[in-house]
Amino acid sequence: MKHTKIKDLLAATQPMKDINAKGWVRTFRNNQFIALNDGSTIHNIQCVVDFENSPEAELKRITTGAAVSVIGDLVESQGAGQKFEIQARSFEILGDSDAEKFPMQPKKHSLEFLRENAHLRVRTNAFGAIMRVRSVLSYAVHKYFQDKGFVYVNTPIITGADAEGAGEMFQVTSLPLDHLPKTEDGNINYKEDFFGKHTNLTVSGQLEGETFAMALGQIYTFGPTFRAENSNTSRHLAEFWMIEPEVAFNDLNDNMDLAEDFIQYVVKYAVDHCKDDLKFLETRLLEEEKSKPQAERSEMALLEKLDFVLNHSFKRVSYTEAIDILKDSTPNKKKKFQYLITEWGADLQSEHERFLVEKHFKSPVILYDYPANIKAFYMRLNEDGKTVRAMDILFPGIGEIVGGSQREERYDVLVEKMRKLGIDEEELWWYLDTRRFGSAVHSGFGLGFERLVLFVTGMTNIRDVIPFPRTPQNAEF
Amino acid sequence: MKHTKIKDLLAATQPMKDINAKGWVRTFRNNQFIALNDGSTIHNIQCVVDFENSPEAELKRITTGAAVSVIGDLVESQGAGQKFEIQARSFEILGDSDAEKFPMQPKKHSLEFLRENAHLRVRTNAFGAIMRVRSVLSYAVHKYFQDKGFVYVNTPIITGADAEGAGEMFQVTSLPLDHLPKTEDGNINYKEDFFGKHTNLTVSGQLEGETFAMALGQIYTFGPTFRAENSNTSRHLAEFWMIEPEVAFNDLNDNMDLAEDFIQYVVKYAVDHCKDDLKFLETRLLEEEKSKPQAERSEMALLEKLDFVLNHSFKRVSYTEAIDILKDSTPNKKKKFQYLITEWGADLQSEHERFLVEKHFKSPVILYDYPANIKAFYMRLNEDGKTVRAMDILFPGIGEIVGGSQREERYDVLVEKMRKLGIDEEELWWYLDTRRFGSAVHSGFGLGFERLVLFVTGMTNIRDVIPFPRTPQNAEF
Repeated sequence: MKHTKIKDLLAATQPMKDINAKGWVRTFRNNQFIALNDGSTIHNIQCVVDFENSPEAELKRITTGAAVSVIGDLVESQGAGQKFEIQARSFEILGDSDAEKFPMQPKKHSLEFLRENAHLRVRTNAFGAIMRVRSVLSYAVHKYFQDKGFVYVNTPIITGADAEGAGEMFQVTSLPLDHLPKTEDGNINYKEDFFGKHTNLTVSGQLEGETFAMALGQIYTFGPTFRAENSNTSRHLAEFWMIEPEVAFNDLNDNMDLAEDFIQYVVKYAVDHCKDDLKFLETRLLEEEKSKPQAERSEMALLEKLDFVLNHSFKRVSYTEAIDILKDSTPNKKKKFQYLITEWGADLQSEHERFLVEKHFKSPVILYDYPANIKAFYMRLNEDGKTVRAMDILFPGIGEIVGGSQREERYDVLVEKMRKLGIDEEELWWYLDTRRFGSAVHSGFGLGFERLVLFVTGMTNIRDVIPFPRTPQNAEF
Repeated sequence: MKHTKIKDLLAATQPMKDINAKGWVRTFRNNQFIALNDGSTIHNIQCVVDFENSPEAELKRITTGAAVSVIGDLVESQGAGQKFEIQARSFEILGDSDAEKFPMQPKKHSLEFLRENAHLRVRTNAFGAIMRVRSVLSYAVHKYFQDKGFVYVNTPIITGADAEGAGEMFQVTSLPLDHLPKTEDGNINYKEDFFGKHTNLTVSGQLEGETFAMALGQIYTFGPTFRAENSNTSRHLAEFWMIEPEVAFNDLNDNMDLAEDFIQYVVKYAVDHCKDDLKFLETRLLEEEKSKPQAERSEMALLEKLDFVLNHSFKRVSYTEAIDILKDSTPNKKKKFQYLITEWGADLQSEHERFLVEKHFKSPVILYDYPANIKAFYMRLNEDGKTVRAMDILFPGIGEIVGGSQREERYDVLVEKMRKLGIDEEELWWYLDTRRFGSAVHSGFGLGFERLVLFVTGMTNIRDVIPFPRTPQNAEF
């Protein structure tokens, strides 16, 4: 007998005879009512067991976490809160769950405890919802770009290039660390390593992505990237997923248009396709914030916040304007900022970004035209000779969610910049080829996927929106 | 002025005034006809330049590989082979391409040469087509599973678990190899490594995926996996993308049904959405095979082969039946196999798989119920006590494209197997939890994405279906 997903049973339009549901027990009340969940939806289906005619020993095995198969009829529910329930004719315990030992009891667990049980936390309402939303957001990313004719490109994870300098890198090796081969002059002999040279985990697929954009026109990547930075914060992971579109013939304005349209599309897609999960997460957030002082609570409920992003253009502000706003701001004058803004050229800290987004503009903000010397070598120099066509998108509660730029398409300008920064031209010969042969204006950006999931789910720690977080001192599972 | 994609221009239903096309010159004939390509389609658009009124110096810059912007009218073409062409009023060279130096000349290049120029090969017809087909296949994978309510799960890339034993692993470290920290007893002190322990690149997301399937019901992964195996063959990569669905309550038959339905869906999706690219690749293959002896040529043209897979059920054959067929086969009797099949229990080599698929059944084949001792520890033991509920799907020209199984859901049987094989139970405590708490029948499989792309594109070397291949002694770009 084929079983039916609980999502489909709950969406039935009329009662059904002889159905089979399979799932895991969330609760069992009064020796009679099983709340059964199979992960297809956040909602449980109530199964009413004929306890008078069921063996006592079997009833005792219906415990939180047990896997159960129920056969019966789908009938209109007498109780409140659900349209249908299953009048069970029989049930079978597929797998027991010792109530004394199962860690996911139907009570409130700390997020910290749940992280230590990342393999089981997905059996809770909150993490089931987060992981379904994450999945739908992933799909929205692909759908957005594919519908527009972008080509998905899998740029390499293991890379011999470490010139981009986006951050500290992890080394990848097949050499035996306890007896490393040495060259005659006593250095490690990387010729004997798997790839015949020193290799790292990628920090970005952008440079390789650019080579494909200069052939296929519009491309995007969506894959894991890595930072070996000892950042033990709620916003950083050592392994995270990044989306990097790159478009030939796009300038910075096109790039801003694309990023804004893209973010609004995927947020709307989640709102349209994850209503139940998002409503649950909204309630969760409200509950969580009750214990916080008023000033730290969100100004808007989750769905209202998402609606706000959908219905408001992102504020576009040049770095120079932003510096003026910050210089004149109350926290700067009253010396409340940890880093005071005194002059043009300062790198913005998250306290400044948060002020702009959350206090001043009260809206997502796109900052553009940053000082050249605080941005990466590949960004296009403006005619002023001191700023580059960079853009960062800042989101309330999240900070930087997108970083992008128009790329320096002029071979000579690019090479001069690389020399100044000591970046090896020979190592990046292939990247420079894009400027040697048929170069053109092009632009792209990177979006940290987990930060997007944070924003949409209303969670506050990035470790709670990826299945198995990788952070300093933690690679469990 | 906004430019229009060449794909859209070629799909126009009527002439258009004042359009702008941007792309790269493929050829320039008679000082008049530019074949322009922007990667949106395999087809070029012909741009007719007013050479009499154009400066000679500018015309000379229209070289293969140059980036050009053309403004003019889309008019019905006088020439054969295209419905529309652009009558150019003006053109601008966006980026030059020195004809003496540009490696991608309009002539036949060896695949080996193109691999060394992986950043430019995508500007050729063949590789543009391959990368578009790869992208559409990726999307079909997501669409198939998402439409069925599967949850996409990003299992970790860096892993502390190395118990699965699917192959040699790459080590990931942030320790300085030239002065490794040591413990008191002279061993490497992994407590000082980034994650506080020895870590590797994942060989499979299956075990983590199972924990999610036992909560969300139906999940799939699609991400990079790694093998540090020194296999310099046309079928192996050190870094490749794998798809791993895992479904609670599915047994091996459901698993075979899912795999077959899935493969047919994604192949059909490519056939429906990549007609032009696949037609080009079909012709390419026919050309390539002309230089081969008759016996080595494909029996079917590319699209015919894809149609065959769509319209024929995969043959389902038990390992035991397969051994009987092989024992009785002509190559076995005539000792043409390198490894002769003499008894039940032998591991099948690719020569045997090829015989079954290409000579005996002439169809994709699903082999199932393998001897336990040649398969992984997590596969469910059959009642006979000597075979496991494993399945491999074998494809003509490709060999194994899918490996999967029903998983051993019984805690005691699984632990006994692990002990026998010396697999550390403590390291896999979280995996065993799925059998401790609410265990149930479940199944899944892994599909090597590049092998699927090989099959659909008709290419013969796996290095030609991934943007930047990673193989022994090669991590360029």
